[in-house]
Amino acid sequence: MTDITTGIAAAGGPSPGNVRPAGDGVRVGVIGAGIMGADHARTLDRWVSGAVVSRIADVDAGRAAQVAAEVPGAATDTDAQALIAAADVDAVVIASHDSTHAELVRAAVAAGKPVLCEKPLAPTLAEASAVARDVAAGADLVTLGFMRRFDAGYTQMRADLAAGRIGRPLVVHSIGRGVSSGPGADSESAITNSAIHDLDIVPWLLGEPLTEIEYRAGNASGGAPEGLQDPHLLLARTAGGTLVTIDIFLNARYGYDIRCELIGETGALSLIEPAVLRRDQDLVSGYRYAEDWRPRFADAYRRELQAWVDLIRGRDGRGELATLQDGLRASRVADAAVRSLRSGGQPVTVASD
Amino acid sequence: MTDITTGIAAAGGPSPGNVRPAGDGVRVGVIGAGIMGADHARTLDRWVSGAVVSRIADVDAGRAAQVAAEVPGAATDTDAQALIAAADVDAVVIASHDSTHAELVRAAVAAGKPVLCEKPLAPTLAEASAVARDVAAGADLVTLGFMRRFDAGYTQMRADLAAGRIGRPLVVHSIGRGVSSGPGADSESAITNSAIHDLDIVPWLLGEPLTEIEYRAGNASGGAPEGLQDPHLLLARTAGGTLVTIDIFLNARYGYDIRCELIGETGALSLIEPAVLRRDQDLVSGYRYAEDWRPRFADAYRRELQAWVDLIRGRDGRGELATLQDGLRASRVADAAVRSLRSGGQPVTVASD
Amino acid sequence: MTDITTGIAAAGGPSPGNVRPAGDGVRVGVIGAGIMGADHARTLDRWVSGAVVSRIADVDAGRAAQVAAEVPGAATDTDAQALIAAADVDAVVIASHDSTHAELVRAAVAAGKPVLCEKPLAPTLAEASAVARDVAAGADLVTLGFMRRFDAGYTQMRADLAAGRIGRPLVVHSIGRGVSSGPGADSESAITNSAIHDLDIVPWLLGEPLTEIEYRAGNASGGAPEGLQDPHLLLARTAGGTLVTIDIFLNARYGYDIRCELIGETGALSLIEPAVLRRDQDLVSGYRYAEDWRPRFADAYRRELQAWVDLIRGRDGRGELATLQDGLRASRVADAAVRSLRSGGQPVTVASD
Amino acid sequence: MTDITTGIAAAGGPSPGNVRPAGDGVRVGVIGAGIMGADHARTLDRWVSGAVVSRIADVDAGRAAQVAAEVPGAATDTDAQALIAAADVDAVVIASHDSTHAELVRAAVAAGKPVLCEKPLAPTLAEASAVARDVAAGADLVTLGFMRRFDAGYTQMRADLAAGRIGRPLVVHSIGRGVSSGPGADSESAITNSAIHDLDIVPWLLGEPLTEIEYRAGNASGGAPEGLQDPHLLLARTAGGTLVTIDIFLNARYGYDIRCELIGETGALSLIEPAVLRRDQDLVSGYRYAEDWRPRFADAYRRELQAWVDLIRGRDGRGELATLQDGLRASRVADAAVRSLRSGGQPVTVASD
Repeated sequence: MTDITTGIAAAGGPSPGNVRPAGDGVRVGVIGAGIMGADHARTLDRWVSGAVVSRIADVDAGRAAQVAAEVPGAATDTDAQALIAAADVDAVVIASHDSTHAELVRAAVAAGKPVLCEKPLAPTLAEASAVARDVAAGADLVTLGFMRRFDAGYTQMRADLAAGRIGRPLVVHSIGRGVSSGPGADSESAITNSAIHDLDIVPWLLGEPLTEIEYRAGNASGGAPEGLQDPHLLLARTAGGTLVTIDIFLNARYGYDIRCELIGETGALSLIEPAVLRRDQDLVSGYRYAEDWRPRFADAYRRELQAWVDLIRGRDGRGELATLQDGLRASRVADAAVRSLRSGGQPVTVASD
Repeated sequence: MTDITTGIAAAGGPSPGNVRPAGDGVRVGVIGAGIMGADHARTLDRWVSGAVVSRIADVDAGRAAQVAAEVPGAATDTDAQALIAAADVDAVVIASHDSTHAELVRAAVAAGKPVLCEKPLAPTLAEASAVARDVAAGADLVTLGFMRRFDAGYTQMRADLAAGRIGRPLVVHSIGRGVSSGPGADSESAITNSAIHDLDIVPWLLGEPLTEIEYRAGNASGGAPEGLQDPHLLLARTAGGTLVTIDIFLNARYGYDIRCELIGETGALSLIEPAVLRRDQDLVSGYRYAEDWRPRFADAYRRELQAWVDLIRGRDGRGELATLQDGLRASRVADAAVRSLRSGGQPVTVASD
Repeated sequence: MTDITTGIAAAGGPSPGNVRPAGDGVRVGVIGAGIMGADHARTLDRWVSGAVVSRIADVDAGRAAQVAAEVPGAATDTDAQALIAAADVDAVVIASHDSTHAELVRAAVAAGKPVLCEKPLAPTLAEASAVARDVAAGADLVTLGFMRRFDAGYTQMRADLAAGRIGRPLVVHSIGRGVSSGPGADSESAITNSAIHDLDIVPWLLGEPLTEIEYRAGNASGGAPEGLQDPHLLLARTAGGTLVTIDIFLNARYGYDIRCELIGETGALSLIEPAVLRRDQDLVSGYRYAEDWRPRFADAYRRELQAWVDLIRGRDGRGELATLQDGLRASRVADAAVRSLRSGGQPVTVASD
Repeated sequence: MTDITTGIAAAGGPSPGNVRPAGDGVRVGVIGAGIMGADHARTLDRWVSGAVVSRIADVDAGRAAQVAAEVPGAATDTDAQALIAAADVDAVVIASHDSTHAELVRAAVAAGKPVLCEKPLAPTLAEASAVARDVAAGADLVTLGFMRRFDAGYTQMRADLAAGRIGRPLVVHSIGRGVSSGPGADSESAITNSAIHDLDIVPWLLGEPLTEIEYRAGNASGGAPEGLQDPHLLLARTAGGTLVTIDIFLNARYGYDIRCELIGETGALSLIEPAVLRRDQDLVSGYRYAEDWRPRFADAYRRELQAWVDLIRGRDGRGELATLQDGLRASRVADAAVRSLRSGGQPVTVASD
């Protein structure tokens, strides 16, 4: 496999070794100028050490220009492939539509450039498997955008578990709720696109894969669009026998609310909502939820991008950055969950690596 | 059916009508001088208006005497039937071993005396059904000890739901954890004796019965005794389609922790642990859990006993006091859960009324 | 001094000894059918063991009748003195206007009847001292209505401090806020009628008197009526040197909010708002404040009244019930605070016992 | 006055204009390799976009080398003046002993280099005033290290106040507690070195200066070293009449705990401790405090340094970065507080600008 730092240096970097000179930024090209891509571009530009956003591509030129206007020095493209090929792009962030991920990962790896691909790797397991097979030789160049691994709460939870503070894990409750579902959401994409974060983070926390999963629908909210069963529940089990519930509700209305509780033999750990201010008003003492994932995980995204840039410039190893295999693993579980959904809730065994 | 207040008056009360004169206490006989019985005796004696504990029965005479020593004016018995028959007993609390409940309920009803029977009505559905059939004519005399209905948190949750504050209910998560399981606990009694509280309170909250239930075991805690799968998860569904998870862990070690979250179409409600003091010490800011159910539900027990006494003395209707039918309904769900457990987790339909 | 239980028995009780027979209630006359009196009458009637409300007096006959309608068996009076003298009144609760307290306490003691007088003993220290002197021989018959001593949070705080859990106390922050001030509130009554709770509870917590106090006004809220400086701050010191801040804001709008933090050498304790339900809605996760003191301290009032009844019927000693001396002590501190207010914030030494 | 970005460019930067080319880092020299300096060096190196740590100076060469070992590319000095003069230093961070601040600020300004000086500007007001006068012509080059202005909680609090969400401010309670005081702490340095953060942040929150202040000592903790009155209380007032309490306890033992509550006419705002994980264990449900200021304010330091670097490289204006005047203002209030301490608690008027 290609070494990610060598790869970059070889592909587009000016330096002979695998450590770039301090102060010389990794030139990142961002594909997709939608909400996620714009956010990544701004974060890289303003908050990440050692990175420069050199190009932003979007099929909608105006949208690319709008983001570029906030990122000094960034050029724009409408053709993602041109961006990948550009000499002033050392590394690529893929934040375009899910359907484009696989092809763009292939192109980036072919160009020998490190790539951070937003989840999912592909909308279906078949496609994800195909791309994983195709880029196997350059797999080290690929990172999947599972940013929760860089959230302070999950990080501390994993460390406490690993340190034996609550004994052996027995049950995990993972909850993901949002204000309203995005355009085009349906019952399957609620799994492959939203629950997939839970399907990645739970094995990461526990250090063991999910091996079986069942889908359960309850009452559907009248606030969900047609075709989307919302909320739904996934009941899963890890290789080690830990029981996992995943409760997803995309149109929960009340706020963007991500929770996780991990119950062990001698104690339990749970995420605290990272609110910073309490307001007492109108007979209520409360704190505010984020309206979407960006404020909730802004710091996780920043740390993820920093870790990725540090990996590229040889300052750090891969650390918690999700690998191609991690992405494939999450897709396998999502696929099993979709099959359970289609079967009316039968337990489905997750395909092994 | 017998009217509960008339019944009492006829059975042992000195007054001709169904409202006792103010200041004249209902004379209660408490059967069982264990933890629960002693607690009920003390609560009735100290904190309940209009009640007098006249007799305490236990097969262990010393134990009865010990409790009676704290309750001025209470006589003791070793024979529960004698207590039920005693002229100075207007009403009976059954807090003896689960296996004795059915027979004592029969005796109390036969004596025409109101009876508050601790849950469960009987260890098995067959026995519970038999006693329900046998005492049908005097069913109004029977109250089941589902005290959570009198807890301020559940009460407020139900009122908020009923007032439409969170829209239609979609999902319920009910969690019950304790420090350590009692003597003799096994996987089935964890359902029939512990989870049964959840099996009562969830339908009470939602106003609709549980109709289907599945049992799931995960990793078992090394801290649980042999024969007890701990923790376990019940996955249920109401008549109206609301999805319910019940997470029971009797040996959770960390504290006695009862939680409930109710997610509706426009908001969510969750119990707040009723701690009253925060302590900042040794780098931790925290509040204390109760070690068992008594402090956690002391107020609920008091309100339940007060409501029961007020019903007996004709000051109030039945209100939220659990009926014989409520007890039978909970036993039916528990029975379905036990059958699911025995079948390796098959979904089991709850028998209808 | 008169023994409170003997006193009662002599004055109006039917029994020869000082312990009333179980089931025979203490017949309480309640003076004042306003918010507080009505609340006490209902609590005694419904929730207190061993008490019967026999009479309710109010200068407004209609108001008395309205409360009596909720309390089975209660007669009404328009003359408080007649109530005190009535043969079917064993003990008296004074919840009428502050200006009437002193005279009614005198009358109750003269009649040899136990009396629970709502705070303050009198609006001014001079009057409070006069009544204390006048009833000195029957002082044991008098209890002051400082109900916070029966609140679970303060109780646990005091126990933790006494058990040495946070070391020696160094600083106390006591906060009392309400939605809006009552009719007629002015800057001085904000001290003598509202802050007086803090002036009682802090010495009770610490086990040492407040010896010096200073008044500080800051910006006044536009929501406060003319003549009321709101909020204000009291800065006090105990005999042992503990620094105390008391922050009072009667028109805080946001809710009825009582807090207390006690900082010791090795840790800190603080009250948790006794909310029981969290609601997630409209991007806020919050719990509700009470609108006034009644729900916040309902349980404390109940426990206080029960303790008082138990004292009267000889079941318990005085325990935490505030004595006449406690009432006088709080009045002395309030008087010092008022003098500081009048002097423009000079430190004022509290008169010693 | 010197423009900060022009200043840099003129002094040591390679570029002709006042905006550095993207990817070209500001070369920062860090003076002081103690806890604070090491932290700044690491943060600049790892987490700040557009910065390079080129030199680290400490009188203890070993200490400088140790920090430099973690910061690729950084050279070391034992002479702070040499660092300031070095051609590869564009901007200077002063994190050495408080007593050195004034002189080093003078040198940096003389060299025309932007300088971020840790608070306080100088240990005494006289020295702070002197340096402010001396560097007046280059005042724009100076930034004071009041990092709380970059904390998410304070930032949100200020925004909510400014947006009118709680009406006009009436009272502020600012609390600062630590586990144990640093070496050499005494009663005066507890003000000039610790409380000074509160003395800066409260005016920043309210948008108006503190004009009067009083010192109050209570019981001293046995855990405080000789010469340090701990805890102490400052009672202050703003130009607009808002009342402010500042409660400082350096040896609070229980944790590093920074709180702030702001009470307005229609609501109140308070900081939430930024814990991310709850642990349930040993009958306690709690979250952990930081042991010192670094984890608590890591993100604020990072944002402060980023804002400073962005100012230097012309990407942003001064924003919330504290100016020389801000530092002088805080020193004036600290000086008034020290004078109040020395006078036994007399109210002292803060010198005006």
